[in-house]
Amino acid sequence: MPDNSKIEQNYTQILNEIFNNLKPFSNAGNVSSAIPELAFIDPAKFGIHLVTMDGTDHSVGDSNEKFSIQSISKVLALAQAFTFTGEKIWERVGVEPSGSAFNSLVQLEYEKGKPRNPFINAGALVVADILVSHLKNPKTDFLDFVRMISNSPEINFNEKVAASEKATGYRNAALANLLKSYGNITNEVEDVLDFYFHQCSIEMSCKELAYAFSFFANSGKILKQEKRILTESQTKRLNALMQTCGFYDESGEFSYKVGLPGKSGIGGGIVAIHPQKYSVASWSPRLNEKGNSVMGMKSLELLTTKTGMSIF
Amino acid sequence: MPDNSKIEQNYTQILNEIFNNLKPFSNAGNVSSAIPELAFIDPAKFGIHLVTMDGTDHSVGDSNEKFSIQSISKVLALAQAFTFTGEKIWERVGVEPSGSAFNSLVQLEYEKGKPRNPFINAGALVVADILVSHLKNPKTDFLDFVRMISNSPEINFNEKVAASEKATGYRNAALANLLKSYGNITNEVEDVLDFYFHQCSIEMSCKELAYAFSFFANSGKILKQEKRILTESQTKRLNALMQTCGFYDESGEFSYKVGLPGKSGIGGGIVAIHPQKYSVASWSPRLNEKGNSVMGMKSLELLTTKTGMSIF
Amino acid sequence: MPDNSKIEQNYTQILNEIFNNLKPFSNAGNVSSAIPELAFIDPAKFGIHLVTMDGTDHSVGDSNEKFSIQSISKVLALAQAFTFTGEKIWERVGVEPSGSAFNSLVQLEYEKGKPRNPFINAGALVVADILVSHLKNPKTDFLDFVRMISNSPEINFNEKVAASEKATGYRNAALANLLKSYGNITNEVEDVLDFYFHQCSIEMSCKELAYAFSFFANSGKILKQEKRILTESQTKRLNALMQTCGFYDESGEFSYKVGLPGKSGIGGGIVAIHPQKYSVASWSPRLNEKGNSVMGMKSLELLTTKTGMSIF
Amino acid sequence: MPDNSKIEQNYTQILNEIFNNLKPFSNAGNVSSAIPELAFIDPAKFGIHLVTMDGTDHSVGDSNEKFSIQSISKVLALAQAFTFTGEKIWERVGVEPSGSAFNSLVQLEYEKGKPRNPFINAGALVVADILVSHLKNPKTDFLDFVRMISNSPEINFNEKVAASEKATGYRNAALANLLKSYGNITNEVEDVLDFYFHQCSIEMSCKELAYAFSFFANSGKILKQEKRILTESQTKRLNALMQTCGFYDESGEFSYKVGLPGKSGIGGGIVAIHPQKYSVASWSPRLNEKGNSVMGMKSLELLTTKTGMSIF
Repeated sequence: MPDNSKIEQNYTQILNEIFNNLKPFSNAGNVSSAIPELAFIDPAKFGIHLVTMDGTDHSVGDSNEKFSIQSISKVLALAQAFTFTGEKIWERVGVEPSGSAFNSLVQLEYEKGKPRNPFINAGALVVADILVSHLKNPKTDFLDFVRMISNSPEINFNEKVAASEKATGYRNAALANLLKSYGNITNEVEDVLDFYFHQCSIEMSCKELAYAFSFFANSGKILKQEKRILTESQTKRLNALMQTCGFYDESGEFSYKVGLPGKSGIGGGIVAIHPQKYSVASWSPRLNEKGNSVMGMKSLELLTTKTGMSIF
Repeated sequence: MPDNSKIEQNYTQILNEIFNNLKPFSNAGNVSSAIPELAFIDPAKFGIHLVTMDGTDHSVGDSNEKFSIQSISKVLALAQAFTFTGEKIWERVGVEPSGSAFNSLVQLEYEKGKPRNPFINAGALVVADILVSHLKNPKTDFLDFVRMISNSPEINFNEKVAASEKATGYRNAALANLLKSYGNITNEVEDVLDFYFHQCSIEMSCKELAYAFSFFANSGKILKQEKRILTESQTKRLNALMQTCGFYDESGEFSYKVGLPGKSGIGGGIVAIHPQKYSVASWSPRLNEKGNSVMGMKSLELLTTKTGMSIF
Repeated sequence: MPDNSKIEQNYTQILNEIFNNLKPFSNAGNVSSAIPELAFIDPAKFGIHLVTMDGTDHSVGDSNEKFSIQSISKVLALAQAFTFTGEKIWERVGVEPSGSAFNSLVQLEYEKGKPRNPFINAGALVVADILVSHLKNPKTDFLDFVRMISNSPEINFNEKVAASEKATGYRNAALANLLKSYGNITNEVEDVLDFYFHQCSIEMSCKELAYAFSFFANSGKILKQEKRILTESQTKRLNALMQTCGFYDESGEFSYKVGLPGKSGIGGGIVAIHPQKYSVASWSPRLNEKGNSVMGMKSLELLTTKTGMSIF
Repeated sequence: MPDNSKIEQNYTQILNEIFNNLKPFSNAGNVSSAIPELAFIDPAKFGIHLVTMDGTDHSVGDSNEKFSIQSISKVLALAQAFTFTGEKIWERVGVEPSGSAFNSLVQLEYEKGKPRNPFINAGALVVADILVSHLKNPKTDFLDFVRMISNSPEINFNEKVAASEKATGYRNAALANLLKSYGNITNEVEDVLDFYFHQCSIEMSCKELAYAFSFFANSGKILKQEKRILTESQTKRLNALMQTCGFYDESGEFSYKVGLPGKSGIGGGIVAIHPQKYSVASWSPRLNEKGNSVMGMKSLELLTTKTGMSIF
């Protein structure tokens, strides 16, 4: 087993090695075409930021540049909704991996309107519905929550991206209407979709994301703050959920190769945490056919290989 | 965070508490009727054995009584097959959770004969086919492997159970023939089924199971022996697989509530491991509707709650 | 084989016999609860009207009372759309039976947005989209078409029913959005749904329905008028489609027992035609579990049994 | 409407026209590779035989050459089974079109072991099981039945084809085992498969097939014999079943374009009947992607177009 103290000191060096190792893969995959506005991104962008639980920062590449966090926002929305509902949330959404593509309607129909988990689009729409019900000003209140946990007031929606998602979001509209037909959306479909498209359009840097997820690695408390978001037990449970469901139809692959709880987004971002050790975010816009960042997946695989530390 | 050294000393006490806490649930669930021969078991049986990585044993109840390990054998078969094939095994079977009942043919057809993972029946049949190809005397050689890793020569097949499975195993025969039609079974269907039914019929005690799985908690080396079964990296990968796929359609639930890699069988056994800390096996024959032991699930949930230690 | 001329004279007597034979079934089944506004109907209503191709009328019961034709409108919409597109329509919707419940999204997703046939809801929405594209004033122009082929100016939408469908039509909204996501809806989703909900809300009597469908039995020409709607070949093709797809998941049953092309609606109406012989419409609001009128199915089965004439 | 008496005299001429019209399509499609032994057939073979209900024969091309009838045998097996069970047969197999590929296991699992109809492989295996139960010497007794209805003693199994099907029939073995797991096969799986593979291997000429199916066009009585096989009502019902389910996933297409009840086989044969008018069989080994003979489909479409007569 590696000497942890030594590793701590070397994270920056490891990130640099990863950065160099991944050059051969820098042309693999394609920028998402799912949302027109996202297609304008420079595919060569690549950054990583890792913050340890004792508060040291390590970064490489474009780690301070903001990008569209997309589905990574589902974890943050779930965390906030969880603070309102506790375990009752599982009456409306499950905790099982979906075993099929991330926006499939089949399983939703088969399971009578209860999405398999909160990280497939259907489940995220139910979580969005919960936040619309509980927040006074849903969009700004959620944004404030994200700013708080990131310790960064400079986080915003990208209205162009939100509008672009709305203009092409017929599939999400189909999901929301189907959920409504099963009674699993309580607000107006239009309001839930508007909130959801905004939530996904949030832009953050690798550093901001690593900090936003730090409470998952820190037993529920925001790093360098006294503020507790979730109890230790709740934190472990959401970590377990990220582990089993965080990567669409590639969750098993990520778990198998990386061995950390994490979440990806089609903007090219990936966040992962190692409980008690670190929170890490990477960004590279080229995606594999499953919708996960090619270099992001590889950089995290290299990270656990080089440090010799996964949760397993 | 709890003081680990203190917990170590108290495992026996914790197991006793769990044993007492679970009395209210002792009538919940039903003994499996899937295999006629298994229906004769006393539903009141209940035992747990935990062995720590520093070699101390803790047990309660019927922990030395043998029972049918059933699907738990799938992990042991995979470990042995993995020693022959390495990563090439994933060309024939996936690492993704199945997202549906454990013996569904639907997904197998949809994915053209490549089972989602090695712990659903279809995947286990492919693993069995690999062992039939690689072992000189498949049944006895596999039995020897199980005896070795358990450090117990007193482990055997139950021929009555194997015969009972064969006589009613039309669904597994359907799966094996379907796999063969896709070219993903290379030996005779009959030979693979015979091996598989025997593999599932193995009888072990909680203590033997806890020892058999100890190498998963011990970076790939058998506890108290010098013998290495898998490399540290391979071990982590199979642990990750147990975490995401070990409990049929309840893998997310187990991961969410227990937070450890593990595997269950319809004989009522459950094994779980905490890397570097312990290997634990429980047995109680009454199953919930998903096919997992009611008291086994609860006892492991209590174990990680009371110790405050999961991998997350 | 029965003497046809004799049967012609006896249709009225046969309808009376059917009416009496079916009294034992008058409490079987339930009025549809799918659309709130439809639930107010008197479940005891029962009428039949049959018009022969030589122009004689035969009726029994509530045959002149108007009811909601619902899905029966899909055939009339298809006929009108077919006059605009001809065979090109099959590029956007198939001619195969669906083999599952009438509003399933599964098959639509599996077949990438091309509905199996024009009589499942998804297919009917594509047809509605075509009419919205081709008609200057879609709703009134379609209504005029229905009035013309029925030779009855007294046919109207029921705005309350249309509004009721809209208020609860989340599943159809889901379908329309899903079709739009595949590019198989070209107009605004809202406009297509508005047209579709109105189309389904049309109210007609058995007599009006029997006349409206008479051109299907008359090689494409409206009965007692010179006006041709479809060519003889087109007419045969739509008849074949009604035969294989007209009764949701019970099309085979209807074909097997009745042996005529036909279409049912959840308002309790059923229309069927015998080419060159007659067009018949029945109405009874109680439905079986597949959504077809219990007494309607039985009355048409009795009709072909008593006359000894089906198309087979 | 065409003058029928004139058409009767011209069937031979019409068949000749069809033969000439279809030359452009003679290279379209591929000979089936599903069964190795079938791959040796000359793809250029093409024949048609039509026999009218008043007993006149019309033929063109290779109409007297024998070929493997394959799935066409399912209708003959059903007819014989129907004579034993009557309507009770529908407790074990449905009458609804399958809406998916002909050998899919998905639907069988979804519907708990009751095949959708007797013409998909699963349904045909249930019918085979019924015949194995009711016939003293299943294989020879069924062969005698086929000889009788064809009025031809020169009909035999092709043992090489039967053996070839058995050697590669893992998918059918999967289906049979799955049916057995649901209790819908009562004999030994092996016996049912052996019967089924033989049934499919029967070789007949177009002329023999047209005669074998003549009782479907003749209200249940064998043409030119007094012998009744089914009642008039039973005959109509099986005709309806052929209409809705006879062409795998292309039944709607055949119904739409041809408008007659019929059945195809992967040996390239197609049979269709026009009640009270004629029975016709065509043969051309090249299949489209749905498994139906390209030229067979087109020749029957031309037949109903040129005669202006379909059942619709």
